[in-house]
Amino acid sequence: MLYIIGLGLADERDVSVKGLEIIRRAERVYLEAYTAILLVDQSQLESYYGRPIILADREMVESKSDEILSGALEKDVAFLVVGDPFSATTHTDLALRCRQHEPSIPTRTLPNASILTAVGATGLSLYSFGQTVSMVFFTDTWKPSSFYDRIAENASLGFHTLVLLDIKVKEPDLKALARGKIVYEPPRFMTVDQCASQMIEIEGERKQGVCANGKLAVGVARLGNADQQIIAGTLEELASADLGRPLHSLVLCGTKMHDMEWEYVREFAIDQAKFDSIWKAEYAGKG
Amino acid sequence: MLYIIGLGLADERDVSVKGLEIIRRAERVYLEAYTAILLVDQSQLESYYGRPIILADREMVESKSDEILSGALEKDVAFLVVGDPFSATTHTDLALRCRQHEPSIPTRTLPNASILTAVGATGLSLYSFGQTVSMVFFTDTWKPSSFYDRIAENASLGFHTLVLLDIKVKEPDLKALARGKIVYEPPRFMTVDQCASQMIEIEGERKQGVCANGKLAVGVARLGNADQQIIAGTLEELASADLGRPLHSLVLCGTKMHDMEWEYVREFAIDQAKFDSIWKAEYAGKG
Repeated sequence: MLYIIGLGLADERDVSVKGLEIIRRAERVYLEAYTAILLVDQSQLESYYGRPIILADREMVESKSDEILSGALEKDVAFLVVGDPFSATTHTDLALRCRQHEPSIPTRTLPNASILTAVGATGLSLYSFGQTVSMVFFTDTWKPSSFYDRIAENASLGFHTLVLLDIKVKEPDLKALARGKIVYEPPRFMTVDQCASQMIEIEGERKQGVCANGKLAVGVARLGNADQQIIAGTLEELASADLGRPLHSLVLCGTKMHDMEWEYVREFAIDQAKFDSIWKAEYAGKG
Repeated sequence: MLYIIGLGLADERDVSVKGLEIIRRAERVYLEAYTAILLVDQSQLESYYGRPIILADREMVESKSDEILSGALEKDVAFLVVGDPFSATTHTDLALRCRQHEPSIPTRTLPNASILTAVGATGLSLYSFGQTVSMVFFTDTWKPSSFYDRIAENASLGFHTLVLLDIKVKEPDLKALARGKIVYEPPRFMTVDQCASQMIEIEGERKQGVCANGKLAVGVARLGNADQQIIAGTLEELASADLGRPLHSLVLCGTKMHDMEWEYVREFAIDQAKFDSIWKAEYAGKG
């Protein structure tokens, strides 16, 4: 059996009791380590779980899944995913491979907390979110802006948008690669201020107002951890906010935002008077 | 400190290790028992957690929250919520009361699996869902149809819609009440077939095609549990499907459904040839 086990968001004790039992008895334990990270080191997981962990990078999952699935017909293999397994496409990919295997390998998924729901800590109603959007690191020559169209769709119906921020782990250093060496760049995690700045940059091109300076947004960091941080303000304010170490996410507020959501989220405002005045002028009663 | 702790979806071992530690040391333990249920009895929770549990019904949470919060400044009180705390408005409500308390009571929330993400087990991408909709039990004289407008909004952008199904626990028997007696009706949980039938019924009034007989949908039951069940088909097919004991939910598919989603979800089809032919004619490439 392949068990795909969600670890939750913060540390080694966010796994479910059921998940922990499976990890401790599994033949091999893999950790998906390229779409999200926990806030603790691999060694801390290994010591708490009492098991060695094999890091599964993108290449292993996408090209060497036979290795992961090896022996899973007879024994239990645990594949750990930060957050909830269904919130990443890795899961569907692996589960499809198990299905296509001859004979097919049974799988079981253990759900857990996800950023998709933990973002409810902002006070924004999870029932009023539209589609989820990803934001990648812009380079000088590559500034993909399809996120803007998706946010515009959500905004047209007053939905909030959760923006998931880029993570670069184990990226080859292109200059070293050109010299025939494989060197990995240090990991990078997009921050709320970088995301807000990129949104404002694309607004400058598109000019539909969807990501204008004065739009209300909420930045979150390390949700689910004791030191989680939530900050609300305009996109412009968030573009110079510092929420500390990763992981960060951003929510752009929609006009469906209800009074009760506003009452809750305004407590996180950088400038509460400003937040309230924009809310009253441009959001309240507009959903 | 008030700890609001998500229990996950299925049984007593879906709580996180961290949550279990807090439950075991808390002064008092409450269980929110009116917006969702676990698949096990209270006695099973109590015996596993090693703690007595106070059932918190709607009246207690909404009118007697002082009782729940009593002593929470000095001691730890655990308030357990099935699924994820942020997925129910109970959380925001209680957290606001803690904030307004003089002096304010610190709270901490432990996220967990939610139906909002566990529904990813269908293979449908969680990133392509629009707003979430609730379906209540119709009566002869009360058939609220605002869900139809919300689904129509989602459908206009090709989003999937998660429909959460009504739960009636501890509802007073109105006939007994008229005789001056408080008697509670047996608990009722809406099923996928009832939901699909109600959607088709409202389609008959609205006639916009949003909930037409032939729309593709997925019914789920007991997600996260070993006996979880997933069935895909037309709304008409789902209207006569039997997914067994609660809890059930339903997803109406949007045209954004990607090839990879289709490849996964079709395995759950009641009639795969029919599912594929509708997908090809009305969904594929239409998002």
